[in-house]
Order: sequence, then C-alpha cells, then structure tokens
Amino acid sequence: MSRHLLSVDSLTRDHVDHLMRLAARMEPIAQRRQVTRVLEGAVLGNLFFEASTRTRVSFNAAFCRLGGSVCDTTGFTFSSMAKGESLYDTSRVMSGYCDAIVMRHPDQGSVAEFAAAINVPVINGGDGPGEHPSQALLDLYTIDKEFARLGKRLAGAHVLMTGDLKYGRTVHSLIKLLSLHDPMRITLVSPPGLEMPSHLVDLVASRGHRVEQRDSLASDFSDLDVVYTTRIQKERFTEEMSESFAGISEEFVVNRAFLDQRCSDTTIVLHPLPRDSRPGANDLDVDLNGDPRLAIFRQTDNGIPVRMAIFASLLEVDELIEQELGPVRWFVPKRLGVDDREL
Amino acid sequence: MSRHLLSVDSLTRDHVDHLMRLAARMEPIAQRRQVTRVLEGAVLGNLFFEASTRTRVSFNAAFCRLGGSVCDTTGFTFSSMAKGESLYDTSRVMSGYCDAIVMRHPDQGSVAEFAAAINVPVINGGDGPGEHPSQALLDLYTIDKEFARLGKRLAGAHVLMTGDLKYGRTVHSLIKLLSLHDPMRITLVSPPGLEMPSHLVDLVASRGHRVEQRDSLASDFSDLDVVYTTRIQKERFTEEMSESFAGISEEFVVNRAFLDQRCSDTTIVLHPLPRDSRPGANDLDVDLNGDPRLAIFRQTDNGIPVRMAIFASLLEVDELIEQELGPVRWFVPKRLGVDDREL
Amino acid sequence: MSRHLLSVDSLTRDHVDHLMRLAARMEPIAQRRQVTRVLEGAVLGNLFFEASTRTRVSFNAAFCRLGGSVCDTTGFTFSSMAKGESLYDTSRVMSGYCDAIVMRHPDQGSVAEFAAAINVPVINGGDGPGEHPSQALLDLYTIDKEFARLGKRLAGAHVLMTGDLKYGRTVHSLIKLLSLHDPMRITLVSPPGLEMPSHLVDLVASRGHRVEQRDSLASDFSDLDVVYTTRIQKERFTEEMSESFAGISEEFVVNRAFLDQRCSDTTIVLHPLPRDSRPGANDLDVDLNGDPRLAIFRQTDNGIPVRMAIFASLLEVDELIEQELGPVRWFVPKRLGVDDREL
Repeated sequence: MSRHLLSVDSLTRDHVDHLMRLAARMEPIAQRRQVTRVLEGAVLGNLFFEASTRTRVSFNAAFCRLGGSVCDTTGFTFSSMAKGESLYDTSRVMSGYCDAIVMRHPDQGSVAEFAAAINVPVINGGDGPGEHPSQALLDLYTIDKEFARLGKRLAGAHVLMTGDLKYGRTVHSLIKLLSLHDPMRITLVSPPGLEMPSHLVDLVASRGHRVEQRDSLASDFSDLDVVYTTRIQKERFTEEMSESFAGISEEFVVNRAFLDQRCSDTTIVLHPLPRDSRPGANDLDVDLNGDPRLAIFRQTDNGIPVRMAIFASLLEVDELIEQELGPVRWFVPKRLGVDDREL
Repeated sequence: MSRHLLSVDSLTRDHVDHLMRLAARMEPIAQRRQVTRVLEGAVLGNLFFEASTRTRVSFNAAFCRLGGSVCDTTGFTFSSMAKGESLYDTSRVMSGYCDAIVMRHPDQGSVAEFAAAINVPVINGGDGPGEHPSQALLDLYTIDKEFARLGKRLAGAHVLMTGDLKYGRTVHSLIKLLSLHDPMRITLVSPPGLEMPSHLVDLVASRGHRVEQRDSLASDFSDLDVVYTTRIQKERFTEEMSESFAGISEEFVVNRAFLDQRCSDTTIVLHPLPRDSRPGANDLDVDLNGDPRLAIFRQTDNGIPVRMAIFASLLEVDELIEQELGPVRWFVPKRLGVDDREL
Repeated sequence: MSRHLLSVDSLTRDHVDHLMRLAARMEPIAQRRQVTRVLEGAVLGNLFFEASTRTRVSFNAAFCRLGGSVCDTTGFTFSSMAKGESLYDTSRVMSGYCDAIVMRHPDQGSVAEFAAAINVPVINGGDGPGEHPSQALLDLYTIDKEFARLGKRLAGAHVLMTGDLKYGRTVHSLIKLLSLHDPMRITLVSPPGLEMPSHLVDLVASRGHRVEQRDSLASDFSDLDVVYTTRIQKERFTEEMSESFAGISEEFVVNRAFLDQRCSDTTIVLHPLPRDSRPGANDLDVDLNGDPRLAIFRQTDNGIPVRMAIFASLLEVDELIEQELGPVRWFVPKRLGVDDREL
C-alpha cells in the first residue's frame, strides 16, 4: 500500500484483504468493549473544505478511538487559500502540524495534488465527483461481514446496484473493489441517463464478472444477495441534466414490497447515506426501518473499524493494537438504535 | 433517571438530589485541583445546529475533564439534513460514532425526536423555545451552593424572578425544579406581555409554594434571598410582539441601587447569561461587577461540575470518579476573574 | 514574564532567551520522536473570531502535543457577543471553562481587553493590525536555529526585510525582538507607501543597530544572512491606499535569480506565510521550492515547539517536560515535504 489512500485504484486484492482483516481486529474497540491509546500524542488534521458532517465525525471518532487528537477544519474556504496560497504550500504547512491528514475538497484531483507535496499520510475523504475510497472499503467490509453471518461467500454472489449509477461515486469505487474478487454477478438498474459509465462496466466484465444492465426494478431477479441503493446526486448534475431530469420515479424505489416480492430473507440492503426521506424523493423507503434485511445502519457503524484500520495501516501501528487494550467502563447500550435487531 | 436528559419534567426530586450530590463530588476536578481519565476512549458528539459558543464549550470542556474526546458540529445546517436526511437517520448514524450526544436545535421537540431513535444517551442542549435542562440544574446547584455558604436553606427562601418570564426558557425550567422542593416564596416581576405562563404559575402554586406576580421592581420586597434576572429574548418574539415591544424600561433594571435599597448583604443575583451590556439594553447592570452578591460568574463556573455530573450519571461512571484522581500540575490562578472575591 | 502573552513589547531579552531555550527542549516532541502528557486534563479555549486555519491548527496541535484537550471556536461572530455580551463577560465565562485561552480577533486591542478581566493565561493570536507575538517568536527561533546550523551568530548579522513593511505586523514584531539583541545590520526594502513606520526605525536605531532603507531590491547587498519577505496585506489597506496601489511590481520579487546574484549559499529566506502564488501576485517566488536556502517550511514547522514553549511557560510546566517523555510508535516520515532537503 502506498503512503497515501487516494483512490481504490491503487489497492491490490492483497491490500484490500489486509485492510478487511485489520478492520475485523478493530471491532472490539469500535463496538466499545475495549479501549486503546496506541495513537496517544498523534494529531489528525481533519480538513473538510466541503460540508460533510457524517464523514468528518466518522474519521474524527475513529482517530479518537485509537487514542489520538483531532484538529478539525470545516467550511467551504480555507482562509489562507483565499489569500492565494497554493495547495502545495497548504499541504507542506499542515504536514508540520499533523501526523495524518484527511481531506475532503469539492475539486476532483485536489486531494491528490495536496498529497503529492508531502510524505505524511493523506486520506482522500472525497474529492467532488472523484474518489471516496474509505466509503467503498466500508461497503465491501459490510458485505463481507454480513455474508459471514449468513454463511455466504462473495464468489458467485449476485449484487444489484440501483439508483444514480452515473454520478454516485460510491458505486464506482465499490464496483472496482468487487471486481478484484472471484467472479460474481452484478446487475445494474438505473433511470435513463444515469447509467453506470461504460468504461466501468467494461472493466468489471473484463475481469470475468457477469454484468447485466436493466432499466427497471420490475424485472424477475433471482437470488439477489445484495441490493445497493443510492441517492440521486442532483448536486453533481450538469445544467442540461438538471433541467431534463424530473426526479426519480416510484418504480425505482427499493421498499418492503420489492424485498418481499423479489428478494429472499437473506438479501441485504445497503445505501451509502444520507438517504432522502422527504416526500416524493423516492429514495430507499423508510418502510424497511426495523427490517433486519436493512443493513444501512450496520453499514455506517462499520465506518469506524474500517477507518481505524486505514489509520492503523498508514501509521504502521497495526501490530500494536492488541498490546494496548483496556476495558470500557462506561455504559454502552446493547443495541444502538431502538429498531436494531439481534441477528 | 431515564436514558436521556431531555426535559426537567422527567426528573424526580430524587434524580435532582442525586445530580446535585454528584456535581459536588466533581468540584475538585472542575476547580482544577485534580484530574480524572475515567472516560478515556469515550467520544462525545457535541451537535450544535444553533450557535451557542458558551453552552457548546461548557459541554465540551466538561467531557474533556472526565477524560473523553469531543467531536464538535457547529452551524445552522447539518449537511446531510440539507440533503433530506431524517432526524431518525441522523440520530442512528451518530449513535454509531459517539458514546453520548449533546444536541442544540432551533426547533422545539427536535431533540426528543432525535433521542427517540437511539439508546445512546442524548442531552438536550436547548431546543428553541423548549427545554434546556442542564441550565436549570446548574441554576439550582448554584442556589444550593451559595445557600450552603451563607447558612441558608431552600425551604422558606424568597426567590425573585424578573425580566422576560414569557420567552426565557431557563426560568420556566428553574421554577419547575424549585417546585419539587419544600415550600418557598416566589415573586415574579415582568413587563406587561412578558409574564410567566399561567400553567407554570398554577403548577408551582399547586405544589404548595407561595407565588406572587408584580409588574414593577419598585415594590417593597422583604427578605429576598435570590434575584434571578433574564435577558429579553427578542429572537423568540412573535412578529406582533416585536412590533409593539419598545424595549425593557429602566425601572426593570437590577443594579447596585436596587440591591442596596431592596435586598440584603446575603441576597445573590443570578442570570443565565449572556447579559446584554449595550447602552439602553437595560439588562442586569455592570455596576454590580466585583460586588460579591453578583453570583453570575460563579453560576457559569458551576456549569462544569453540573455537566460533568450529567455525563457521569448517564454514562454510569459516577461510582468510579474517586478511584481515578490524579494531581493537576499546571498553573491555576487562585481567582479566575480579576474582580472575583474571596467569600 | 507576565500572566498573558499579548505583545512582544512586554518581553525582555531574558524572557525571549528563556522561551528560545524552552522551545529547543520541545523539539523531540515537536519532531514526533517523543510524546508527553504533562497537560493531560487541561483544556485550551482556542477562540478565533477571524479566520486563520494555519494559526488555529498550529496552536491546537501544540497544545495536543503537550497532552491537553482543545475547544475550538471559529467564525467571524461569537454568538453571545452578537447578543450584546461584553468582552469582559465573555472572558470571565471562558476562564471558568478553560485553563488557557488563545484569541484572534479583528479589532486591535480587543485581546488585551479580553485578557484584562481574567487571571487565566491569554495568548494574543493576532488582533487585526495589532500584535501577533507567537509569530515573531517563531521567526526569531528560526533565525537562531538556522544560524546555529550554519555556524553564524546573531550579533553583526545582516537582515533584509522586504515587501509590505507598513501593514505587515509580523515584521513590526520581529524587528522589535531583533532589536533586543547585540547590534546587527537591518536593511528595509519596500515599495513607495509601504515603508516601515518611522517610530520602529527610530527604536531600532536607538538600540544601536544599523538600519538602512531602500526602495529597490536591485541594489548591491553584501553578506545578507536573512531575507525576510512578506505578502502585501491588501485586506488591511485604507481605502485610499487600495485605490492608488496597483500591486507590487516584479522588481520586488525574491526569487532564485535574486538569491543567486545578491546572496550567498548561507542566506536563508523567510516568509510568515501564506504566500500568494497566483500569477501576478509577485510574492516570494515558487522557483525557490526545494532550494535549501528557502527556510519557510522549516519556519512554519517551528511554530509547534515555540507555541509549546509559550504554553509550557505560561502554565508553568516547563520543569516537568523531561520527566514525562514516552516513545512515538507510529510512522513519522524522515522528511515531511517531498522537496525537503537534508541539511
């Protein structure tokens, strides 16, 4: 694995397997049964030049749970950048203050440019329409963990991806990670104009996977193991696209009826969140709340062990984790959410 | 005590007494004579969807002084809420990152809705015109502590509340907490239109307290033990109210002359802060600065032990506090403020 | 040294020497070879009422590296100040939450007013056109450290200051600190209208230094040891100045050609950063990136040990630092920046 984590493209199957195993070793800490202080004294620069409370807090909490301290920066502008400072200067300055840096920025490629100037580890927390590798890793980790619980294997699994497959960067990164594994079946369903880019379809097919594209959920799917749904990324639409797109129609909604009719008891439903629960948004339906097949909150919970694993790997403390464990002495509820189910 | 702290309404006299005793045990740490690390490894989500630097920093510092780490969120919008995320989803997501959550939000009831989705403890840090229970608890703690110093008892005490008694949520919560105690005398003085809501007056009276309402401070008060003043909450006025209200007049100002003429040497003056010190604001007068009867800064200082007690109680580490104490080795001034007096 | 650090004017030569020695003792921690927890349990209020990511993160990281916790406040307004709260009240309230306070504020004198109310140590992080003492101290520390490496002495050195010497508060503070030392030679070069204020020129001359003012870099300089460059502070210009100032011309640019023609191999180039790297800005040239004479990133790195020294001195833990050291166990790159050179 390279010094930084900028894109899933730089990850080999071995890197991914290593991170998945490392994340599993983080579970006792992430689930608040044990405490580690292995990064005590280390400082994370958590630089968010685009609002993203969820991702920012997730990285922040993951670093804190390893014992480190976090300097947060939020807001659309970086004051010194507004005064004409280059990414090169900003990067080199921050490397003098921080031991690791997470950066989210609206401009594709900016995080890579930032990282190119320094040897301190940089994690891409999302660069506009570009990459968001930690999300893809936690998606894969969730599938692995759910499959282990259900006695399933990734090889030969059937994964449905639906929603905005054109602008949803998480599905782009996830499909690349899935493609590193043994052949599986991937079905892509999206409204017209929001199809998965063809170079990604070709890449996955070239690696031996069976990829099928459809324009409706009203098909006869067999043996769906994973339904990965996404929000329409209106904020990333081109102007032309915005004008012509009337909104996603009801027929693309994944809800309890869809699961009951077209899926099995062991199908899991994922979503990178946030989901749009406003009337008419036609995002993943809230009628699945409390249904054990809805894995979206287990998925977001997995952000902590996966991001801990990324930090531990880049900062090379992965071998020290087990040496440092102490007990958690505060109250931790058995189930975080009132609708969580024992599985 | 329930899993969350959302309203003083859920608190019995026993709960309140427990929190008061626990806060007293936090004093050595709050006063920076000792250090504890009992929450080392725990993460607080300090979610402020309405600006409130004072309250935010107070909760943050209280959690840090117990050894925990804090993820702050400030700003009027939460990025994923802007994308249509429900409070249910936001709450369940945050519960996966944090061990406790403080939330301030401009909409009444929103914090309760947020808390309903999860089993991780949630503290209401103020929900618009609704509740702000930690403020009421620190107000009560201040009265208790000052009375102990002065050799007074709460039973039979005379408490004057003045200012905006209609929109000032702190007086609403405080009067409820006071009403749980043995009978006392409560006098309410407010400009016309800003009177204490009658259901609260009735509640307090029904619990055996003697409540009197007046429209002027130019009365003959006897034996005032506490003068609780409040700022006019113009930001919560209705439009009609805003138009007709010309501002609070000078006759409602609590100042040195009022204390010298109508109070005793052992009367204490409280205010939930911030006080408006601009000319013409007619809020609590700065001519009392340095007067030992002005207890407003001792009151805000008490926010730390009280909020530590709330965290320790909800996270069930109250029995561990004394096991963990270490010395403070850095400089702590004998008096925090240059005008503070030895009492 | 007084309770606060508000201005370099309050510092004697002894104070400065003490801070320089203390900063040198912080190097093992600042360079991430060792960890200390001496301020474990202490809380810093890092109050930035004017955007300054760099300075804010630098103070934050320095406090964290001493083991403390940090409550950050960013944004142009302080919510309670917007409600009419006085600096006196804000200050006294914050002193109840925090063990030390760093404050940046756009209004000159406001930090001193804030500090006057409390005995908790306050550090001026920049008050508009006023002071920014920690920057001047890290500038001096950088010169000391670079000179030690090069076998030079401050006495008799030749320092060139160039750029906006009128509004650049860092050069004002640095020249005062330099003037406390044995006589040296100081040359000042600025565009017309941006000259160093004459009272500072007079002060330095009165202390026995040889000060010379020129209006061009195209002069014959001999034996330059330090070239201190600054960005044009357009945001501090008067309206009249803004209208008449067409921008700094190319002839004032410090670049590789200037260094090769007018300096030696042991000249170092400093800049308080940020530098404006936009085309036409004519700030310090990027063609020096990677040149070992460019000391600007070593300079910003020095912000950490210097700010640690300020905290340790004000909080009186300077004698405890060496008792507390533990090893750093995470990955720290040999060179922070890819263009950093072994010196």
